[in-house]
This record gives sequence, structure tokens and C-alpha cells, in this order.
Amino acid sequence: MKITNKELQTKYVKLENKQVVLSGWVRTNRDQKSFGFLTINDGSTLDNVQVVYAEEDSDFETLRHIRVGAAVVVEGNVVVTPLNAQKYELRATNVAIAGDSPENYPIQPKRHTREFLREVAHLRVRTNLFNAVFRVRSKVAYAIHKFFQEQNFVYVHTPIITSNDGEGAGQMFNVTTFDLDKIPYNDSKEVDYSKDFFGKRTNLAVTGQLEAESYALAFSNVYTFGPTFRAENSNTLTHASEFWMIEPEMAFCDLKGDMKIMENMLKYLVKYSLKELRPELEFFDKFVSPGLITKLEAILKKPFARITHYNAIKLIHEASKNGVKFENVPAYGEDIGKEHEKFLTEKHFNGPVFVTNWPKEIKAFYMKLNKDNRTVAAVDLLVPGSGELCGGSQREEDYDKLVVRMKELNMSEKGLEWYLDLRKYGGCVHSGFGMGFERLIMYLTGVENIRDVLPFPRTPKNAEF
Amino acid sequence: MKITNKELQTKYVKLENKQVVLSGWVRTNRDQKSFGFLTINDGSTLDNVQVVYAEEDSDFETLRHIRVGAAVVVEGNVVVTPLNAQKYELRATNVAIAGDSPENYPIQPKRHTREFLREVAHLRVRTNLFNAVFRVRSKVAYAIHKFFQEQNFVYVHTPIITSNDGEGAGQMFNVTTFDLDKIPYNDSKEVDYSKDFFGKRTNLAVTGQLEAESYALAFSNVYTFGPTFRAENSNTLTHASEFWMIEPEMAFCDLKGDMKIMENMLKYLVKYSLKELRPELEFFDKFVSPGLITKLEAILKKPFARITHYNAIKLIHEASKNGVKFENVPAYGEDIGKEHEKFLTEKHFNGPVFVTNWPKEIKAFYMKLNKDNRTVAAVDLLVPGSGELCGGSQREEDYDKLVVRMKELNMSEKGLEWYLDLRKYGGCVHSGFGMGFERLIMYLTGVENIRDVLPFPRTPKNAEF
Repeated sequence: MKITNKELQTKYVKLENKQVVLSGWVRTNRDQKSFGFLTINDGSTLDNVQVVYAEEDSDFETLRHIRVGAAVVVEGNVVVTPLNAQKYELRATNVAIAGDSPENYPIQPKRHTREFLREVAHLRVRTNLFNAVFRVRSKVAYAIHKFFQEQNFVYVHTPIITSNDGEGAGQMFNVTTFDLDKIPYNDSKEVDYSKDFFGKRTNLAVTGQLEAESYALAFSNVYTFGPTFRAENSNTLTHASEFWMIEPEMAFCDLKGDMKIMENMLKYLVKYSLKELRPELEFFDKFVSPGLITKLEAILKKPFARITHYNAIKLIHEASKNGVKFENVPAYGEDIGKEHEKFLTEKHFNGPVFVTNWPKEIKAFYMKLNKDNRTVAAVDLLVPGSGELCGGSQREEDYDKLVVRMKELNMSEKGLEWYLDLRKYGGCVHSGFGMGFERLIMYLTGVENIRDVLPFPRTPKNAEF
Repeated sequence: MKITNKELQTKYVKLENKQVVLSGWVRTNRDQKSFGFLTINDGSTLDNVQVVYAEEDSDFETLRHIRVGAAVVVEGNVVVTPLNAQKYELRATNVAIAGDSPENYPIQPKRHTREFLREVAHLRVRTNLFNAVFRVRSKVAYAIHKFFQEQNFVYVHTPIITSNDGEGAGQMFNVTTFDLDKIPYNDSKEVDYSKDFFGKRTNLAVTGQLEAESYALAFSNVYTFGPTFRAENSNTLTHASEFWMIEPEMAFCDLKGDMKIMENMLKYLVKYSLKELRPELEFFDKFVSPGLITKLEAILKKPFARITHYNAIKLIHEASKNGVKFENVPAYGEDIGKEHEKFLTEKHFNGPVFVTNWPKEIKAFYMKLNKDNRTVAAVDLLVPGSGELCGGSQREEDYDKLVVRMKELNMSEKGLEWYLDLRKYGGCVHSGFGMGFERLIMYLTGVENIRDVLPFPRTPKNAEF
């Protein structure tokens, strides 16, 4: 009977002395005089299985020489070993090499630097760290769908290739089928985009929000979950050129409703992870980010704090006067930096905090103007350890106000007529937010470099694999 | 108490005479002398709610003039109406207009052509047809995740921007941050890609399979579900330039195992749809594709048929001799066309059929060469009504054979060293397949044009919204 290690973990008692077949990759092979041990990982769980083989096995010499990295198919009996950390092992009756691995296999059982492992991103997932990271990534992606689907949100695939610049800013990747050494020009010596594949200039989407709004105004509650692109030339721990985003959008929902969903979502995902990904979180707590589980459990215990941007700046000013050291103290109307996020979440509130009502100048064109005419109904969710995790807003549903704002920002209505239509035809109060999926995974695992939570990260000068 | 129509459908008996608040968009407003009827859709379900308002309401005149498309917030009492098709209605106590809609609102309650509706893709989702299509799309996407996650498959986000050409063919979109009117050249007068964002030539991925293989060789069972791109200049009912694909990949799995998962998956999705999307499927059966439900129920009843490519051609030859009319009769070794798929699935087998062991010349480089040296362990799954739904293969795990095949096809190893590594280090028998998500949705709904199952379709000369 074919079995995975995951299945063995739950059924080993019932399977005692039964013959099973388990396939996987050799992590170590320690041979002694008359017997040896293979540790095998099949990727079904973080844990390895121990396989024991003995001298009396006819192919003892072959087994002794099985190398790290080889793919093997083990037939063996389940032995219950109550005194071992893992409560069972396999006593091999036959081991077949399904795929050999030479001596120069890069993932040897020793400590490798993360930098080295990024260079072998096609193999690094065979280490404990990346096995854990990418299982968390998979299960949490599923939990996100589960959370929204359970509440009847409709999942929308917004377009990746677009002719919009969703944020009214942002550096974008061009998409073209032109041969770059044969660009066609028109009579005015401009690039003749009418000859390009889509007949116009196109780029990779920086957000799916605008299109999601269109669907929210029909389904009431929708969400996107897809890749997003920024051609920003910055090499930081938290920026990638290609990353995944979740963008829920809700009709008949104001900023308060928006925050409620954000808070419910994050608590749901943390609870789910603590329950369904316990071995992985324990691994991260032990080897990557001590205190991780305590940090995650803490946010479940109380409602998230709320403060306006104005009052947040005031707090920072007061703290600065009272001796808290900041490299920079922002003026009212300015953005807040990482050090202030840290102060708010880790010192002042000691937990997640919503910062609301931001100065309109530092936020996007589509955000709902508050009555003070200076701030917009925007919110950032800051969390201890990671800073900003989600950003959202109520959207400007007033056609005239939106047009005025676009004019102030010298934005053209051309190409966005359809977006303005959403304010003409049954437009209503609606809100949404965006959450960077990698930020979430970094928050849940404590892994500090975004390159280590993306299977094959894309960053400036790097599109390997 | 705020409520959705979906919630009302299950709770109306308990809520009789209770006051509720329901928000949505007006589909029709019929006023009579002393009372009137609003039909409201809130997107939570395909059905509308009927709202009754009466002359004695102080704002009767306002209510009478509410226009189609307006967003409204209705306060009213739940009235149980056992004789009506919908078993309940709301007796309005207050109706607030949350967003007005002018007379020229494009989605009036009459028949619109699908061509017209594509031009207003930002509003078409407010019609019954597209409400149903995109709810199916959302729920089936979720069911796909559910199917794979329940079996402990790991979901992998393979890169969208890549420097590989995964299929060894395929027309691709270039991705660049160059200003197209200032392309830099090197000393040899070639485009100087070293100055581009990623320092090399990059394009949008046509498949995630190669990267998925790398993850399968660590996790055993993985799947992708993401957007895929083809710059093919073809305007057909079934081609889009941007579409979503599901690509499962399994280690220690041969072609038989591959087919088993394909069949289990399709049956799971059909069962799920028949259960969870019943009103939508009934709508399609009635208005779009008569017989749809019978067609779907039929495939659950027996195992899928299996035939080799050679024998399929033989069948076609025999049928042709026996009077079945084909526009074209393929020779052994040639591909089969839509008319042959139709013959096999709708006439000969009367159900889904796996066609296996294809001539290597018409399949991709990575497919496992059979012992005959002429065919590869590839499979297409054909279904009645839609033809090819999935295509898969066992992958060539033999390093030397893969290199030989690449040489035969004049493929460079450069950039694919990592892919070849997967054959060096613990490579083993592994298989996978791809399913176009839109093809699946067309199959499940009977909608015949791919432009009508993509929220904002991208096709040659078309990247609106």
C-alpha cells in the first residue's frame, strides 16, 4: 500500500507491522557496521521518516552507498517506536533508487546560507526552511479563499495586461510584441502603438482594484488574488518586482466596515495558521523568529487599536519630547516611517493598529474625501514586527468630486471613462483594501527577506529560472 | 438587521414579519396606481428580491421614479408569499437611494447582444447571464483549490515574468522597462538587454510547468493556478491572450496516475457544480445550452474511455470508410482536429476520452519518450461539447534522453541548466497536466465564447478596461 509520511503520522498505530511503500528523497544516510539509517522526506510534511536497513539485506552494500538527494521508493514494515521523537520508523524490505544523485548535489546536510540557496532556488525547497515556508504559503493562500468564500465573496480575476495605471503613479513594465530592434514609428516620429498586439500601449497591472470595483458594484462583495507588478528599482528586504496581492472590495461598506473585514481576515488567518500549520510555526519559532507564536497568539486576544493619522503624529511628537529616539520626526501631513510604525505597534499600542484619515496629498486619487477637505477615508493596518500589512480606503463614489481630484492631479479621464461610469450608474458607498501576500507570509513565518517567501523571486537584474 | 438575498433565501420563514435592511441594484420598477414593485439584485445570488411599496408611503412619488440601475437601501418587513415563485418579498418601510442611475443607463431590462455587453464589460456583470457566469467562475476556482488541498497538494505561484520559453515554441509577450523610442544598443548594434530591468530579455510565461516540476520534486504533489499568456494573433471563440491555467505536477507518478487525477478532478468539479451551483446551471440549461445538466450528470456515471492516438486515427479512418463525413482525415502521426474530437466524444465513445501515446513530433520536448522511440507518454482529455479540456504527459526524467531531444529540436541548454538539474539530482518518474480554466468554465456553463467567461478579456487589438 502506497502511503505518505503525512498519512503515516496519523495512522502508524493502526499500521504497525504492516507493509507500506513510501517514496521520497534521501536527506541523510548513516551506515553502521551491521545496519544503517536513511532519513527520507517526501514533502507531505516537514518531518522525515527514518528507514532502517540491515546487513542481512542482500543489497546492504548498495543501500550503504545511497547518496543524499537520491529519490527512493522504500518498501518496508511500520515499526512503532514510542521512545523516539518520531513515534514510528520503517524497517526496509526493499529500497529502489528511482533517481540517483551525484556527490556534487548542492543541498548537503549542513548549514547553507540563504544567499547560496537563492542561487539554487530550484533545489532549495528540499530544505526544511523552504519546505516550511512554501507549505505555509500554500495553505494560507487556501485559507484566504476559504475566508472570503465562506462569506459569499466572489473571486474575480482582474486583468494582468492593462492600459490603465491603477494607482495614478507607479513604475510599470511595458508589454509589447514589437521586436525591440524594429520599433515602428508613425509620421510624427512617435512609436506607432496602433501596430502593437493590442493596438495601444499596455503594461502589467500594478493593482486590480479599479476592475474589482466594477465587480463589487454588481456582486456587493468580491476579492482578487493574483500577481501584481512594480518596476521599482529598489533592492530592499520587502520589495519584489512581481508579487501576489489580495484586494477585497465591498459595496455598501464604509471605512468602518472595511476595517472590520481586515481585522476579521487577519485574525482568521492567524488562527488558521496556529491550528493547521503548527509544526511549521514551531519550526520558525525555534530557528527563525523566537517568540513568533506568542506574537501571533497575542493579536487574537483583543480588538485592534485605532488612531487617526493626525493623532498618530501627535503621539510621535509627544514621545519624541519624552525621550523616545527617532531618526526623523514627521510633521503633520507627512507620511510615517518604519521607526514610527514600530513605535506605535510595539511600544505604544503593543499590538496591531489601524491608522485612519490620511492627508489626501499622500494618498491615491480614488480615495473618499472627508468633510474636512484635507484628509481622505484611508486606513493602514500596522502590525508588530512587520509594520504596514494592509492599506485600504473608502472610495470616492461622488462623480464630480472624483473628477475634480483627477484634474488636481493632472490625470486624464481618457481610458478611465468606464471607471467614472461606476459613479454614474448606481455607484454607492464602497470600500476595499489591498494586502501584499508576501508581507503576510513574512509576518506569519518571521522570514525577513521577501526573496525567501517567493518561489522564484523577481527583483532588479534578477529573473532567473 | 442587515441581510443579503442569499441569507433571506434560507431564513425567510424564521424572519417573517421581521424588519430587515437589504442593499442592491434596481433591475425593474413597475408602478401601478396605488402600489409598485421594485426588483432588486444584490449579487449574493442569481435571484432578485421583490420589494413592494404602497401609495400610503410618504415618498410614493419618489419611489415610483426610481430608475433601473440605481443602488438602493431598502428597509422592509419580510412577507412570506407561498404562492409566488420566490417564496418571500419585502414590504418596504423605507427606500433610500444610495446611488442614482440616469435614463441612459446601458443595462436596461431587455435583451442585449453579447457583443454589446462586451463593450460595457464593466457593467455587464449586472445581467443575469454574467452574474451566473462569474459566480460559477469564482466557486469553481475555489473547488479546484479544495480538490487539491484536500489531497495535500502544495499550491505554487510560479513566476509570470520569465526568461524561459516553457513550451519550446509559442508566441510570447516581451516585458521591458525600456522607453520604446530610446532602445539602447550595444557595440554590435544589438539591443542591449543588459540595460533592461532584469538585465536580460524577459517575457510573460506561457506555462508554469517547468518551475512546478522543481517543486514536485520536493513536495511530491503540487499545483499551479495562475495567469498565462500567449501572443497568438488568432481571433477564435476559444483563444484569449491572457487566461488562467491549472497545472498539477506529481512525482512518483506515471501517465496512468496522471489520468487518474485528471478524471478524479473533473468528476469532483462537475459534482461540486451540480451541488453548489444548481440555480446557475439550471439557468444555463434553460437559456444557454439546453441539455447541459444531463451532459454533466452523464460523465459522472462511468469511467472515462481510453484510446491510443494510433487507434484513434484508425477509428477515424474506419468511420470515414463507413460513411462518417469528415472535412479532413488525418494520417497516422498527424494531429486530430475538432471534428475528430467531436466524433470520438459525441459519437463513438459518447463521453470523455483520454487519447494517449502521441507522435513525438507533434508534442513538447519534455515529454517521456516511449520504448517505441516514436511516441511520447502524453495524454489529451477530450470531452463532449468542448473537445480538448486537459493535456498532460509523463515527463522525460532521463537526463541523456532529454538532452538528445533538445538537440534534435535545436533547443539551447542555456537558461535551462536548472531544469536539467532536476534530472541529475534525485529526478524520478513524474507527470503532470494543464487545464485551461476558461475552457473548463465554458464546458460547465455551455457559454461558447471565451470572451464571455473572462471578466475583462484580452484578445488581439483589445485590452480595454
